[in-house]
Amino acid sequence: MSALKRVSDLMLPVIERELQQTIAQAHAPHLFEMQRMLAYHMGWEAEAAGVEARGKRIRPLLTLLCTMAAGGEWERALSGAAAVELVHNFSLLHDDIQDESPTRRGRPTVWTIWGVAQAINAGDALFALAQLTVLDLGEIVSKEAGLAASRVLQQTCLHLTQGQFLDLYYEQQPDLGVKDYWPMVAGKTAALLSASTQIGAIAAQAPPARVDAYRRFGELLGFAFQVQDDLLGIWGDAALTGKSTDSDLVSGKKSLPVLFGLEKKGEFAKRWARGRIEPDEVEHLAMLLEAEGGRSFVEQEADQLTRQALEALGEAQPRGEAKNALEELAHYLLKRKL
Amino acid sequence: MSALKRVSDLMLPVIERELQQTIAQAHAPHLFEMQRMLAYHMGWEAEAAGVEARGKRIRPLLTLLCTMAAGGEWERALSGAAAVELVHNFSLLHDDIQDESPTRRGRPTVWTIWGVAQAINAGDALFALAQLTVLDLGEIVSKEAGLAASRVLQQTCLHLTQGQFLDLYYEQQPDLGVKDYWPMVAGKTAALLSASTQIGAIAAQAPPARVDAYRRFGELLGFAFQVQDDLLGIWGDAALTGKSTDSDLVSGKKSLPVLFGLEKKGEFAKRWARGRIEPDEVEHLAMLLEAEGGRSFVEQEADQLTRQALEALGEAQPRGEAKNALEELAHYLLKRKL
Repeated sequence: MSALKRVSDLMLPVIERELQQTIAQAHAPHLFEMQRMLAYHMGWEAEAAGVEARGKRIRPLLTLLCTMAAGGEWERALSGAAAVELVHNFSLLHDDIQDESPTRRGRPTVWTIWGVAQAINAGDALFALAQLTVLDLGEIVSKEAGLAASRVLQQTCLHLTQGQFLDLYYEQQPDLGVKDYWPMVAGKTAALLSASTQIGAIAAQAPPARVDAYRRFGELLGFAFQVQDDLLGIWGDAALTGKSTDSDLVSGKKSLPVLFGLEKKGEFAKRWARGRIEPDEVEHLAMLLEAEGGRSFVEQEADQLTRQALEALGEAQPRGEAKNALEELAHYLLKRKL
Repeated sequence: MSALKRVSDLMLPVIERELQQTIAQAHAPHLFEMQRMLAYHMGWEAEAAGVEARGKRIRPLLTLLCTMAAGGEWERALSGAAAVELVHNFSLLHDDIQDESPTRRGRPTVWTIWGVAQAINAGDALFALAQLTVLDLGEIVSKEAGLAASRVLQQTCLHLTQGQFLDLYYEQQPDLGVKDYWPMVAGKTAALLSASTQIGAIAAQAPPARVDAYRRFGELLGFAFQVQDDLLGIWGDAALTGKSTDSDLVSGKKSLPVLFGLEKKGEFAKRWARGRIEPDEVEHLAMLLEAEGGRSFVEQEADQLTRQALEALGEAQPRGEAKNALEELAHYLLKRKL
């Protein structure tokens, strides 16, 4: 059995219980229906509840693995782990409203069931619960750890809103290029993965240079993961086969290959400017973008970021079984086949 | 010149500068338009910007007055004061989307200008900035003060979302009474006023019993203010004269007099159940509700809460000019003529 499987089999049920206890704290008479909304979004209640509806809980797992790898007791970092997962879920809940997404993880989104007003509110509640929970590290670990982890989480939330701002803002911007990609992804993806690893190291009371190496590992992992995801979004199997509605080219996402193509101002950019791309054009446009150098550029970026992420992990000097588990997790996230 | 006028003339410009600096911290290349949204909502930029568009900044003023009255230096509490005002503005921004309100303080609301998606995001950014700012007390005052004030603020944010949940939820509930009023107002109004006074006392490093008295003062002030506001919403001049569109009876608000009337299940409740009340019915229905005992019940509640709020302030043993200013502020908020 792999180290990752062994450790995550141990940690995942404990993470789930911590999340449930955190949300149960907010219960009070009158609030039954509000709790139901939160439990639904977390994948615990109603239609198709279960592991699939919960997502992979990658972020809290990263937190606990980093605590363990930095020589701390992972059980003492649980409130930090719950906090990063709650922030992730807050941002998904609001993103679904903003993007008018009807489904998430195969189920109807909260706003389609309870309406936009209550969904905004449910997101705000998850946000507040995350902030409240991370402060527990001030009692469980140390005052310094509580304040430091809380500051990391708040900065991350601000960063998330800035990434989301850019994502929405770019929809109306005509002249975009590769340079516009990085601040968006820094906020939308890298910030929270970076907070996940950093808070794990803080909870282990690792020395500042070590905490910073874990922070960089998470950040680079986030960038590498997103660039890889963008590659798959155009040249992955699901994007190229069948009706190709899964392609990022159809959804209009400002992914790295697309921004590369727009900056080139070649044939791809000309077609993009003419409006919405249909599924039957996807294969041709993916070839066009590849011919213009988009694919090899993005593959190089992914390789470089992956290498840098693993270097940062090396500098963090992780120890024991958690070291192997972290390396496996990084490979799992980054080496998915095209 | 009154103590309140003298002290607030001193504090208000400093509060405004602190708020501006806090929001400016979040600026970065690419984020110009996001900063514009926040500055607009805060009343600093664009159409009809100015004092009217900013609101009265009552909450940060309360924080600083409580710090001063508890023997602390008010300048050291500024990040706490900015935090409560940012939380207030976050909740207004999201409330406006939830209630589909076209205007706020005489200007178009953020969502009508930038759209719902960006408005949700701007609210989230103010939320994150508030949480980030209050942590500064950990460096300016003490680690304990930073952690304690942060916890108070997070609890308050959770409480706000719960009050807002009930407000929205009650729109679809047929069987409501006076008992349903208190948890809603506890969240929507009392929680943040209570946080404002409590954080002020924490920043002064007041002993726990004194901090608790300031907390109760803020909480009771919030309840008293809301009950008074509900009275004015039906029997105040603006609600009864002219076309009476300002009446809470027309907006359908679940205010304390209305909940009293619904619980009575008399003529008022019968008319309410038949649907939307027109402006020309307002005078008659206000008389009906008064005849059923609604007005005297709510007046008694307001009197009692006002007395309790002032008692709690007495128990806090405020000192110096800030004592007089706090008493004046309480009277100003609570003794508005019907």
